[in-house]
Amino acid sequence: MMEYQSDEVYERSHRALLDKDFDPVRYFDPKTVHHTLGEQITDWDQKRAAYMAENSGANRTNTGKPRILLVSGSQPKPCDNPMGDYLILKNLKNKVDYCRLHDIEIFYNMAHLDMEMSGFWAKLPLLRKLMLNHPEIEWIWWMDSDAFFTDMQFELPMDKYENHNMVLHGWYDLLYQQRSWIGLNTGSFLIRNCQWSLDILDAWAPYGPKGKPRTEGGKLLTKYLDGRPEFEADDQSALIYLLLSQKEKWAEKTYLESSYFLHGYWVILVESYEKLMEKYHPGFGDDRWPFVTHFVGCKPCHGSSGDYSAERCTKQMERAFNFADNQILQMYGYQHPNLETYAVKKIVEPASNVKNPSGLTNPVDQPRLLRGRNNLITL
Amino acid sequence: MMEYQSDEVYERSHRALLDKDFDPVRYFDPKTVHHTLGEQITDWDQKRAAYMAENSGANRTNTGKPRILLVSGSQPKPCDNPMGDYLILKNLKNKVDYCRLHDIEIFYNMAHLDMEMSGFWAKLPLLRKLMLNHPEIEWIWWMDSDAFFTDMQFELPMDKYENHNMVLHGWYDLLYQQRSWIGLNTGSFLIRNCQWSLDILDAWAPYGPKGKPRTEGGKLLTKYLDGRPEFEADDQSALIYLLLSQKEKWAEKTYLESSYFLHGYWVILVESYEKLMEKYHPGFGDDRWPFVTHFVGCKPCHGSSGDYSAERCTKQMERAFNFADNQILQMYGYQHPNLETYAVKKIVEPASNVKNPSGLTNPVDQPRLLRGRNNLITL
Repeated sequence: MMEYQSDEVYERSHRALLDKDFDPVRYFDPKTVHHTLGEQITDWDQKRAAYMAENSGANRTNTGKPRILLVSGSQPKPCDNPMGDYLILKNLKNKVDYCRLHDIEIFYNMAHLDMEMSGFWAKLPLLRKLMLNHPEIEWIWWMDSDAFFTDMQFELPMDKYENHNMVLHGWYDLLYQQRSWIGLNTGSFLIRNCQWSLDILDAWAPYGPKGKPRTEGGKLLTKYLDGRPEFEADDQSALIYLLLSQKEKWAEKTYLESSYFLHGYWVILVESYEKLMEKYHPGFGDDRWPFVTHFVGCKPCHGSSGDYSAERCTKQMERAFNFADNQILQMYGYQHPNLETYAVKKIVEPASNVKNPSGLTNPVDQPRLLRGRNNLITL
Repeated sequence: MMEYQSDEVYERSHRALLDKDFDPVRYFDPKTVHHTLGEQITDWDQKRAAYMAENSGANRTNTGKPRILLVSGSQPKPCDNPMGDYLILKNLKNKVDYCRLHDIEIFYNMAHLDMEMSGFWAKLPLLRKLMLNHPEIEWIWWMDSDAFFTDMQFELPMDKYENHNMVLHGWYDLLYQQRSWIGLNTGSFLIRNCQWSLDILDAWAPYGPKGKPRTEGGKLLTKYLDGRPEFEADDQSALIYLLLSQKEKWAEKTYLESSYFLHGYWVILVESYEKLMEKYHPGFGDDRWPFVTHFVGCKPCHGSSGDYSAERCTKQMERAFNFADNQILQMYGYQHPNLETYAVKKIVEPASNVKNPSGLTNPVDQPRLLRGRNNLITL
């Protein structure tokens, strides 16, 4: 890892590495850039405040939690790899299950809203559009279609984020001191519906358009960030670059979360599911029971063109799905006999089950899983 | 079509058609049958009433509508036909969109809960399980994974069904007089969470198990119902048989809906989408803008083994999806340039749009589409 350098020293050395005739600061300045997400908006906080004044409490759920819209998506056409659509279908079912249990709405996108912002960049115009169309939504939660909820009970600690506008899985030292390109992960992150977020999307977007912005951006990011391979600009690296190069603007409102797996790297998690099932139970969200297992480097739609073999990715995605699915099925008296199979078997009701006053069985171990929209114990 | 006969006359002629040593009434009586959905339950209405007494209003949404759980599902393994999973994914997105707009919860099943009750019979054990586990749900809405919502604005007229326990698309004469095997359709139907429903599931299930029940059942149903081809017992025919042979038990509480397309047969609908788009707008749910387009006879998972060619089914499913998807995309300023393509283009905002007091655009033509959970106009 690169040693820590002061911002000033770093800025000088970083400049020296770039082509003489290329001024990234000017090139990627949202004010001069050739491509934008749309007409600049500067009064969103006022507009939204006016909306909220007319619709008091609209940005809260009925249990008083901030209203969240989970956003995910995949390409509009069939996958090249036939297994891809099957895995994406299971992924969407997994998200539907989590969101039903936790009173979160889902928007699943299958349209390219902006052909220039393809691939991992497609989320930016989508998030902006959803913010503007849904003033009642307080937080948008982006989650990749290769990220599975693996702790169905864990709930986001939203109170922690009250003074922040963006929440990503990441580490302060790794990001700000080591300038690592994996200092944070953009596969699963929260962004508040506010002017600050529209501004960071505007600053973020210039690296996304196909062609020169993305190729020149890629060079810049590889030079600037520790460990980054050479490839076109990606949204994760570009966000890190923004946080490093314009720290005063963005860092204060950006929360780097590492106390649980808002994103969890699959390679370090998937082999241990069985051990976790022996020792722990859902609800921790951390290394005892990972909240999210994210298949970074697997490209379910493209078969073997990712960093790992299609076989390994497919097998482990099925395991992650089944690991999560058990937490749903167990509420109904079923489970997968092992994590490798889609088959299910009936389970004997756990001894800890108690009857509630209506005589309905009430598994005490999973009270939160069974909470309906109005905070009911439903069984 | 078979002419109308009195029940008595019909019963005699129908008996004569059956094998002498086969007594279907005894064979399929839930009391003697070899396979059941589980231990018989007789006090569900009392149990549920006790639950409701403790959780007042739990079976209503926050806008006072009966709480509905949409249930759908598909096989746990990948489709034989690679396009199948892609079409099922689009179908699930379509359901997620409709349910988000209308405050309906979704349960998507991918597990075979009972190996004997496979194929179209899998819904029975699932519906029973969901009823028992979710006393807070008032209605379960089963919808096949080859049925698409095509009117995103139309809302079920639940008040109409206050005195009924089951709602299916069907016609009184066609069912009770002509005894047609397409007198109703089970691809999209509502069933109330109550003892009556548990009882009809118990009476319905005996025709489902693989082997003799299903093959003998199939013979019985083909003989008894007008127009039914020879094949194993299916849930639709068996339900019709129940309604005909035990009319006094089930007919009164079963609502046959034909005023809108709770199920709409795709063959008569899909070619006219363009004409409808010229003349009408969403919200009717009937032949002016079909609520549900159901791909009866297409088997998306099995390619060409259905009644229609895989190419025709695939093409028309994409069209149905895009027809529905336009109603979502238009809220965000996009639409498909035609129904054949997954591509989208930006649209000019319609002249009818007005600004609401917060200065946010408010498309007046689609007020219900934009209603959030708390009856908000969200844009």
